[in-house]
Amino acid sequence: MSAAPPRIDADRLLKRLDAFAAVGATPRGGVDRQALTVGDREVRAMLAGLGVARGFTVEQDAAANLFLRRSGTDGALPPLLLGSHLDTQPTGGRFDGALGVLAGFEVLEALEDAGVATRRAVELAVWTNEEGSRFLPGCLGSQAFAAGALSPEWAGRHGPDGARLGDELAATLDALPGAALRPLGRPISAYLELHIEQGPVLEREGLAIGAVTGIQGTRWLEVTITGAAAHAGTTPPAYRRDPMVAAAAALHRLAGVMARDGLARLTVGRIRAEPGSINAVPERVVLTLDLRHPDAEALDAIERMVREELGQAATEARCEASATVVFDMAPVAFDAAMVALVEASAAVAGHASRRLVSGAFHDALFLARLAPAAMIFVPCRDGISHNEAEFVEPRFAVAGAETLLEATLRAAV
Amino acid sequence: MSAAPPRIDADRLLKRLDAFAAVGATPRGGVDRQALTVGDREVRAMLAGLGVARGFTVEQDAAANLFLRRSGTDGALPPLLLGSHLDTQPTGGRFDGALGVLAGFEVLEALEDAGVATRRAVELAVWTNEEGSRFLPGCLGSQAFAAGALSPEWAGRHGPDGARLGDELAATLDALPGAALRPLGRPISAYLELHIEQGPVLEREGLAIGAVTGIQGTRWLEVTITGAAAHAGTTPPAYRRDPMVAAAAALHRLAGVMARDGLARLTVGRIRAEPGSINAVPERVVLTLDLRHPDAEALDAIERMVREELGQAATEARCEASATVVFDMAPVAFDAAMVALVEASAAVAGHASRRLVSGAFHDALFLARLAPAAMIFVPCRDGISHNEAEFVEPRFAVAGAETLLEATLRAAV
Repeated sequence: MSAAPPRIDADRLLKRLDAFAAVGATPRGGVDRQALTVGDREVRAMLAGLGVARGFTVEQDAAANLFLRRSGTDGALPPLLLGSHLDTQPTGGRFDGALGVLAGFEVLEALEDAGVATRRAVELAVWTNEEGSRFLPGCLGSQAFAAGALSPEWAGRHGPDGARLGDELAATLDALPGAALRPLGRPISAYLELHIEQGPVLEREGLAIGAVTGIQGTRWLEVTITGAAAHAGTTPPAYRRDPMVAAAAALHRLAGVMARDGLARLTVGRIRAEPGSINAVPERVVLTLDLRHPDAEALDAIERMVREELGQAATEARCEASATVVFDMAPVAFDAAMVALVEASAAVAGHASRRLVSGAFHDALFLARLAPAAMIFVPCRDGISHNEAEFVEPRFAVAGAETLLEATLRAAV
Repeated sequence: MSAAPPRIDADRLLKRLDAFAAVGATPRGGVDRQALTVGDREVRAMLAGLGVARGFTVEQDAAANLFLRRSGTDGALPPLLLGSHLDTQPTGGRFDGALGVLAGFEVLEALEDAGVATRRAVELAVWTNEEGSRFLPGCLGSQAFAAGALSPEWAGRHGPDGARLGDELAATLDALPGAALRPLGRPISAYLELHIEQGPVLEREGLAIGAVTGIQGTRWLEVTITGAAAHAGTTPPAYRRDPMVAAAAALHRLAGVMARDGLARLTVGRIRAEPGSINAVPERVVLTLDLRHPDAEALDAIERMVREELGQAATEARCEASATVVFDMAPVAFDAAMVALVEASAAVAGHASRRLVSGAFHDALFLARLAPAAMIFVPCRDGISHNEAEFVEPRFAVAGAETLLEATLRAAV
């Protein structure tokens, strides 16, 4: 084995990002490579071929998760797992998912190039259907890996193009006959995922690396405030039961509270007044609330506060409010030692970092149920993602890979 | 002439309200008798026949306004005009318009029964197409009377049933061959209109009569607040440009200001967030504002305040707001002496009254351009109108007619 320390080959990584982005490339510079399509199979085959050429073990499982393993010196130890995804949104970007996979492969190659022996095997996972845009659920592959099984009802689901999920999984597996089929799930020592932030924080603060401490919990409420329809001209305020007055009061007060909590998020994405006549006090206002917080108890407390504010504002306006939870995903806190490892690795690699919470879901959310997990974020321009304009500066892509390499060296011992 | 004072025959008035409500009666107790339909022609013919039987002069004009005149002792004086309308909304009520017309006819009959001679002629007008539900514009007849002409573009307009306004006007005039055609418009000494309140104030305050001081001005704004679309999970409040935050702040503050002004009205009848994704900060919020005030300068001041609040709230949320006036009708203040006459007449008739402003449009708005005008309101149950459930207690219908009679006696001298 060589004594030279392993290093990321920036040129190789960036060229490979370009090569993979060419598969499903859109005229506007993005990528359309939805899960289990021909394009998805093509990049899986490209990566498998690169892995075989480097002597890595290539396997897949029943969820069409793809694994490339560089062996360690102690075959009895569970491997360190790196991973992300290669599928995209229909008008997706070049980096969401692909950066984590290709940086992970770059780490395996860097170890190989430097002849570094790790005690544990280091395995790169490509998770199937993280995006969920063609088939539900998103994070299908990582969920199946964490559960050790595919949910029975998934196979019969159809995408908007009419394709059946079970058929597309089988065809995708068949398209890579050289990769041995292995059981779903297996013990791992830890999980590391590099991903773009998909938000504005790192860019605004001029930082290359985010040490992700967890993934926010998300809870969606559908709120209905019911008053009484009335003539806009003939009904004085004192005789109105105006649900817009209640909605404005509640939302204004909630926005004030949220602005003072650095970790809470509240978003009203949809709102309508019914019946929607320009010269009538509406009978009801229906709106959605997207609530997020990295702490489960805090998320519960936010929901309670939202319900209290809605009730109070409704009462003030002689209206009634009701709220129904229509989606609920608990937060996950990443392992403290793993987060510290990411921070230390960024520092060793020479990159400024900060801790932050992921506002979006990731495969790491499910892997964290199996083993200590953490994520590394790099900035993307203007925080834009799920968009053909998604862009990551080359220096940040490289910084992410370098941090992942340092973390791998420390976690794979 | 008899010395007995004229009196309203409550039984005759109420039976006549029933008889007219039977034309176009709906199964749910309302009336569908839209302007210039066969039903509208039928009630015009009924009223003309009643007028002829009492010896009144029956005429119509090119707008199909119908007039019944009881002569005065001095034919050189312009007449006192009473009036309202007989057309209804498609699912309208029994009293909106018809009460004013039939109470006006009851006043003429009461004068006739008592043999009271008035110096001025007292003329009852039935205005064409007040509602505007079949043909635009509403208040067609009173507008044409006030202008002395039909607007040239009206005749070519079509209703939702395909009928052409010009054809329906001609057919309506032809359906009443016994009524002489007279020119549009003529000098009048004053105008009085009895109408249901179409709002909750009189009922809530237990009053039989409202002395209407004017008709609110109405101004409609379409407001757009533009921010930036962003991921609901990944974008902290400090980095958001959330137009819903701006809208809630502006509407909450405006509702507070409006609640302290007894005469101002502000209504948000429509609101939407775009693009309308549950988990995205919207790019823009579009909403309508219906602003009303009886004073023109106050209405201007409200619009200025609305624009300032929108601008301030938008700036606070790093958004931009714009507002466009899409409808504007100036307020009208009724003649002070006429309003005092209505108040005094209610008192003489033994009915408690208060002054109030009309929140809805009425034919009186246009008559007030020609001569001193005023309106008498009576309560309707729950303030409901433009609805088959519209209802006026018989005692209030009679109280309105009694007040109209007393006012007529004083104005027709």
